[in-house]
Amino acid sequence: MCEKPWEQLGNSFVQHYYSLFDSDRAQLGSIYIEQSCLTWEGQQFQGKGSIVEKLASLPFTKIAHSITAQDHQLTPDCCILSMVVGQLKVDDDPVMGFHQSFILKNINDGWVCTNDMFRLAIHNFG
Amino acid sequence: MCEKPWEQLGNSFVQHYYSLFDSDRAQLGSIYIEQSCLTWEGQQFQGKGSIVEKLASLPFTKIAHSITAQDHQLTPDCCILSMVVGQLKVDDDPVMGFHQSFILKNINDGWVCTNDMFRLAIHNFG
Repeated sequence: MCEKPWEQLGNSFVQHYYSLFDSDRAQLGSIYIEQSCLTWEGQQFQGKGSIVEKLASLPFTKIAHSITAQDHQLTPDCCILSMVVGQLKVDDDPVMGFHQSFILKNINDGWVCTNDMFRLAIHNFG
Repeated sequence: MCEKPWEQLGNSFVQHYYSLFDSDRAQLGSIYIEQSCLTWEGQQFQGKGSIVEKLASLPFTKIAHSITAQDHQLTPDCCILSMVVGQLKVDDDPVMGFHQSFILKNINDGWVCTNDMFRLAIHNFG
């Protein structure tokens, strides 16, 4: 049996993730493990250290995400798949669309993010 | 050990999926199983039958997808997570952006889609 309710768990994760990202993204290490993978605009990173290094080094000071839609599903292996569509504003740049997908896995009674993919939506309207 | 190369498998799946979708989407049943979940613009469907019924009933005659970017990762359970960003054109409507996430799982030496989430990108620019 998979743990329920995954929709609520997914929502809580998403809220936690963007709240941390917008306030102090260097702290995002707490949600990843050594097996975690991040694909950021096509670039691949593996492991808590590499992922946090990438996120912390992104070249902006202020960022604010707002979520337009989020979907959550249970996977056959009792993980949660979450897909987020939203907008973000970086420093004084114009607002941009983004989308991000996560897989969350329950390990030792805690939820971690094992897979993370991020793309800006500007590709669609270039 | 998980089967490699997942990136190539993910790419092949994506090509197959949109090719079938654009030519005869009623045939997409071949990629789903009874446990498969589809979230289509926030609406949830489970099982090959319900999913194909939804896809077949979408109210348009012609559709053409073009893929802008696709990312693939291996999950801890040897599945493949794929995220696609692209554009689609439906009948004579203007081109719209979309994003879609899939989880592919190897069952009995074949790959099936267990999780599928679709959103139009127009939410970002409403």
